[in-house]
Amino acid sequence: MKATGLIVEYNPFHNGHLLHLNEAKKQTGAEVIIAVMSGSFLQRGEPALLPKWERAKMAVDAGLDLVVELPFHFATQQAAIFANGAVEILAALGVSSIFFGSENGDAKSFSKAASVISGQNDAFKAAIRRYLDDKTHSYATAWNLAIRELAPDLALDLTQPNNILGFHYTLAAVSQQVPITMATMKRQNAAYHDHSPSHQSIASATAIRHMLLKDDLAAVSQYVPETTFRILQNYQQTHNFASWHHFWPLLKYQLITASTEQLQQIRGITEGIENRLQKAALHADNFEDFLVQTVTKRYSKSRIHRTALQILMQQQEAEVPSQNYIRILGMSATGQRYLNHIKKEIPLPLVSTMSKANPALIQNDIRATQLYSLAPTLSDQIQRDFQTPIYRKNP
Amino acid sequence: MKATGLIVEYNPFHNGHLLHLNEAKKQTGAEVIIAVMSGSFLQRGEPALLPKWERAKMAVDAGLDLVVELPFHFATQQAAIFANGAVEILAALGVSSIFFGSENGDAKSFSKAASVISGQNDAFKAAIRRYLDDKTHSYATAWNLAIRELAPDLALDLTQPNNILGFHYTLAAVSQQVPITMATMKRQNAAYHDHSPSHQSIASATAIRHMLLKDDLAAVSQYVPETTFRILQNYQQTHNFASWHHFWPLLKYQLITASTEQLQQIRGITEGIENRLQKAALHADNFEDFLVQTVTKRYSKSRIHRTALQILMQQQEAEVPSQNYIRILGMSATGQRYLNHIKKEIPLPLVSTMSKANPALIQNDIRATQLYSLAPTLSDQIQRDFQTPIYRKNP
Repeated sequence: MKATGLIVEYNPFHNGHLLHLNEAKKQTGAEVIIAVMSGSFLQRGEPALLPKWERAKMAVDAGLDLVVELPFHFATQQAAIFANGAVEILAALGVSSIFFGSENGDAKSFSKAASVISGQNDAFKAAIRRYLDDKTHSYATAWNLAIRELAPDLALDLTQPNNILGFHYTLAAVSQQVPITMATMKRQNAAYHDHSPSHQSIASATAIRHMLLKDDLAAVSQYVPETTFRILQNYQQTHNFASWHHFWPLLKYQLITASTEQLQQIRGITEGIENRLQKAALHADNFEDFLVQTVTKRYSKSRIHRTALQILMQQQEAEVPSQNYIRILGMSATGQRYLNHIKKEIPLPLVSTMSKANPALIQNDIRATQLYSLAPTLSDQIQRDFQTPIYRKNP
Repeated sequence: MKATGLIVEYNPFHNGHLLHLNEAKKQTGAEVIIAVMSGSFLQRGEPALLPKWERAKMAVDAGLDLVVELPFHFATQQAAIFANGAVEILAALGVSSIFFGSENGDAKSFSKAASVISGQNDAFKAAIRRYLDDKTHSYATAWNLAIRELAPDLALDLTQPNNILGFHYTLAAVSQQVPITMATMKRQNAAYHDHSPSHQSIASATAIRHMLLKDDLAAVSQYVPETTFRILQNYQQTHNFASWHHFWPLLKYQLITASTEQLQQIRGITEGIENRLQKAALHADNFEDFLVQTVTKRYSKSRIHRTALQILMQQQEAEVPSQNYIRILGMSATGQRYLNHIKKEIPLPLVSTMSKANPALIQNDIRATQLYSLAPTLSDQIQRDFQTPIYRKNP
């Protein structure tokens, strides 16, 4: 059975994602579509609106065959690490291609860029470091300046968020030397960061999240499949959609009581950023205020989000898990058949029940779920991780 | 000027405390009465009902001349450590006696007990350790069994809370070799733990706290001086009286996200108690529930309270300050005159303004105040430490 892979967050699953899914089926001719998806916390360092199990259900109900969780230590990091974790999982699950949305739409331009950069890896890293040493550039800017310096003629605009991700997927496949083809479609209608919907049935996930955080579920209905809408509706009856707002009191507490030395052990804490964050925590009344006091040209909003999340999670650099694993969140009958078929050849640990799993492998993700469960009104879900069954959709 | 010292918590200052203060003046003939008082958190590992500045004001308004803070690392520990810190401060301030309430009422029985125990210190410690090794006794029980074994004929009942404290004050003065006389009065009417008042004008602080936490201020009025009542009344208009209830969400978060290795660095974490606490945090819905799941014969409620507080504060064993210091919270005109008189001879650092203080000395108490300020509706007080002026009462 031919399988293709998508790398997603589905926060929440909307019509643009459905388009992407259908296009993946059409263009690759795959019989099995596998999504690797962030768990409770996302690539931009934010809590997901709703739990990973709900989001996996949306995906399977919309036609995905297998939804696999990207572990926290990959999912909440910058594009290169995020992509490496996701590509490793998809490769282990035997996909022959990865299909992603981009602003560019031309797979060849990604391969070209990846081979140019991977061919001069050391020079590239040195150039990034040189720009960072200025202490005026964010990592993203330094990265871009380095690209432009080493490969001035690229046909790919690497300031566009989905182009950046696509580039990193391609680079990860090259550096992991896995036989995976890259395929891409041009994103339709909604720019990544658009806050207001710009088309009758497609809106950016950002715009949809804004509506949901205002509890305006009705406004969302035209932009999401009916299956998603029903799940959102049910969920909202007993829960708030989560945001940093809910975790702010815990972050503030953590920044106030942790010593500087402790904070310096946290993943992503460099260059004295801990002092900036601690000072802001004392004076800020809410998370927005905290961002106003910490975001600068050098420290982007995503960087602050991600660093704050690692602090909230007390993710010590020395404790970051070293291994990837496969964790199924949901599957269709086809997905189940496919999984049974390839099960014995998967080169990564396949974790389905907690009791049989290596604790060192899953402890970090259990902790992330427990942390996520502390958002008000979500507390009944604590410890649901590895006790919540895989969502199975039968035909 | 002759000075006598009291060791107090004043949570809040009530008629029993007033009796104690007046008796101290009468029995010792001192012109200056100095209280060393716990700060934001108390000896039994609980947050104070209201901030230290409010409590210092109650004390000065009721007739105390000088109120000095006992630093967090002494104030929130078992009786021996608490007493050592307090006696060191009072000795530095030149008191000629310490006057305490006890169930016994006879100062000589305390001196006798202290000299018997300090004369066989090593045997005493070994006996405590032997009883603790059973893993069935709490520290308090082991301590008592050791006393009974080594000094079976003591005229002092060392199972009574105020006798225990008085004994430790006496022992601290003996071991610090300071020229301080011990004087005591028999406590009147209200037993230490009484939950309901038993006399027309005297009630235990525990009973008073119960009334205040139920916001029943009217019920309190007959048991506290009018000066206290007015302060409580003003405070209540804009604040909640603090309790563990307010800090429970932060404790739960901390126990969920800290690694076992991190918890093992915390002061007071021994014998794997961290596992017990972490497990309970996952399942408990509130602090009461947490206590039900953790308190045993071996781990008393006070032990759990104190350990939980050290975790909440992230007080690492390696970070515990090594030095004591003098921090004035409030004073009368007499107190100020006395302080000016002895200022140059105080053998401990006298800290009055943050900018001039050694940060290593005060950092821990600043953190405790910031932590205390996280109790809901107290947040406007964050960072007030060292920015709140000393309360001065002029005649």
